[in-house]
Amino acid sequence: MKVNGIPYRTIWPHPTDERIIQIIDQRHLPHRFVVEDLASVQDVFTAIKDMHVRGAGLIGATAGYGMYLAAMEVSQSDSFDTHVKNAAEKLKSARPTAMNLFWAVDKQREAISSVNSKDEKISIALQTAKEIADSDAEYCRRIGEHGVTLIEEISRRKGGKPVNILTHCNAGWLAFVDFGSATAPVYAAHDKGIAVHVWVDETRPRNQGAALTCWELGNHGVPHTLITDNAGGYLMQQGKVDLVIVGSDRTTHTGDVANKVGTYLKALAARDNNIPFYVALPSSTIDWETADGVKDIPIEQRDPDEVKYVEGWCGDEVKKVRICPENSPAANYAFDVTPARLVTGLITERGICNADRDSIQKLFPKKQVL
Amino acid sequence: MKVNGIPYRTIWPHPTDERIIQIIDQRHLPHRFVVEDLASVQDVFTAIKDMHVRGAGLIGATAGYGMYLAAMEVSQSDSFDTHVKNAAEKLKSARPTAMNLFWAVDKQREAISSVNSKDEKISIALQTAKEIADSDAEYCRRIGEHGVTLIEEISRRKGGKPVNILTHCNAGWLAFVDFGSATAPVYAAHDKGIAVHVWVDETRPRNQGAALTCWELGNHGVPHTLITDNAGGYLMQQGKVDLVIVGSDRTTHTGDVANKVGTYLKALAARDNNIPFYVALPSSTIDWETADGVKDIPIEQRDPDEVKYVEGWCGDEVKKVRICPENSPAANYAFDVTPARLVTGLITERGICNADRDSIQKLFPKKQVL
Repeated sequence: MKVNGIPYRTIWPHPTDERIIQIIDQRHLPHRFVVEDLASVQDVFTAIKDMHVRGAGLIGATAGYGMYLAAMEVSQSDSFDTHVKNAAEKLKSARPTAMNLFWAVDKQREAISSVNSKDEKISIALQTAKEIADSDAEYCRRIGEHGVTLIEEISRRKGGKPVNILTHCNAGWLAFVDFGSATAPVYAAHDKGIAVHVWVDETRPRNQGAALTCWELGNHGVPHTLITDNAGGYLMQQGKVDLVIVGSDRTTHTGDVANKVGTYLKALAARDNNIPFYVALPSSTIDWETADGVKDIPIEQRDPDEVKYVEGWCGDEVKKVRICPENSPAANYAFDVTPARLVTGLITERGICNADRDSIQKLFPKKQVL
Repeated sequence: MKVNGIPYRTIWPHPTDERIIQIIDQRHLPHRFVVEDLASVQDVFTAIKDMHVRGAGLIGATAGYGMYLAAMEVSQSDSFDTHVKNAAEKLKSARPTAMNLFWAVDKQREAISSVNSKDEKISIALQTAKEIADSDAEYCRRIGEHGVTLIEEISRRKGGKPVNILTHCNAGWLAFVDFGSATAPVYAAHDKGIAVHVWVDETRPRNQGAALTCWELGNHGVPHTLITDNAGGYLMQQGKVDLVIVGSDRTTHTGDVANKVGTYLKALAARDNNIPFYVALPSSTIDWETADGVKDIPIEQRDPDEVKYVEGWCGDEVKKVRICPENSPAANYAFDVTPARLVTGLITERGICNADRDSIQKLFPKKQVL
């Protein structure tokens, strides 16, 4: 999508030197737009671990390029296989719960071992890294293509008045290689000339909505308004929301949706006000094992300081302020699970389906492999 | 309630000089405990207008003492009546939507005009100011007395294990003269030796939960944990909440509750998980005119910068940080309305009743006048 009028992805090979991979260092957003060069496995490991990049799709794509850099790094004295194996293990350890990370690394190991010479290995690793990134972007593009039909229908019903869409957290192009999941239908609508307006939940504690979603929508020119996480219910009561679209960190094959904490509260409000609540996801987030999401999806508890402190721009630098007494205990549950009964539908790369076992299996007759 | 082990109210006459009124200057909480002397109508006006004091009950009590200071301020040359009338108008203009402010000022004008000499006027004004403060504290104490029965029952059912209570914003003793509304049953339980634990919603955008509720519970020794506004739904799904108690800014005589934005989302989650959702309120917040709260209660829109910026402690001073791009539009709806159908009951100074017209009228057969 566009940044200052120029189309970007979140990761790409350096335009004049393919030994270098470039990313948007998202730690500086929204306050500074910083492009970082990654020239080694160590660089990629740090970028993933310290969250220069984040989001399932983008972590996978970055790991893919990391394995390409690993193949290039092998010196004469090293054993190629040992080096690549060590790099794979290192990269996998950067974010131990990221499914796409494991998948991308394993896909690269398979590709690299399928050819013999060092040059061939490097060449196939670059090609595979590009394929991983391209397919991530393509899946998101298709989510947009399917999801935009929902927006078009509401726009028709409203006689072309802006369609008000509420979203939570950042399931935007910054979390993938391009387009995003929840934002893909919004960008598709905007680019088709359909009037849209997005209510952006700030998404405490890490404020990914305020920092990232506002930034990307603003740069692409999509009208939007930042709100507190508390405000969505009121807006729905007052008829100011036509549609909710959120992303998903894990979706059970029965349709339960684990997503950033607070999603469930918005789903309840949408149901109470008869507003459609959709979840946009590439099928790689579908969990084909778990049936009861509320009971069985483990919820990460993060550092309580993320709740006690808020980070932002102050004067000419980023600072943290404490919002409570120094010794107040705090708890930081990072996700919640929205039961399938509250989900109007899932927007996937293969189309839109109901959030239930039969509908999901009909769209994905075999366990989906990206 | 206690601060550093010493019992406090939020407002009191200076212990050795009754020409001075003392308040806790709440702008500095939770970072500094500052007691401020108010010695003139102008001091009181500033304290109310610039929110050194806030909360319906406390604003009323402060205005009551303000009228006492007005009576004392009259010099020989002034006309007593003109001076008191001007002071009354000035104080009423400090927070133009605060019902208790008007009520306290008018009550004082009536008292002052009921006697003749200047000394008598000053004396009755002090007495009336104390009565207003005492009755505010007494009403809250009774709310605690009634509400604690709910906590005792849950405690029995749980075999004495801590009763987990979730609250939103600050309907604590800092918003009244003592005890608070939503917190009164909690303090009553704690002081009786019943094990309680409070989940405190931070309550964006102004973070009154994080700054004020955490501070007052911590000082009184009540176990509590700060959470984001997003987390309550997850906690309820996981059985970690036994009871929700919130305050109310305005309650229709049909049981709809206008309270700090986000309250409605917690009411929905409580209903979805069969958790009792109670609203604690002195009957002075009951609106005897309005029947449909969702439709007819006007919701204040405040400065969008409260959403874009977060204030907190940084190093050795209070600073503000911006959490979104500089030019992001933001909206700041300050309240929402929880429909009566989601409210398990109202805890008032006269007892607990259902949130419907008949039950409320039974408890308050005439329009309630404090």
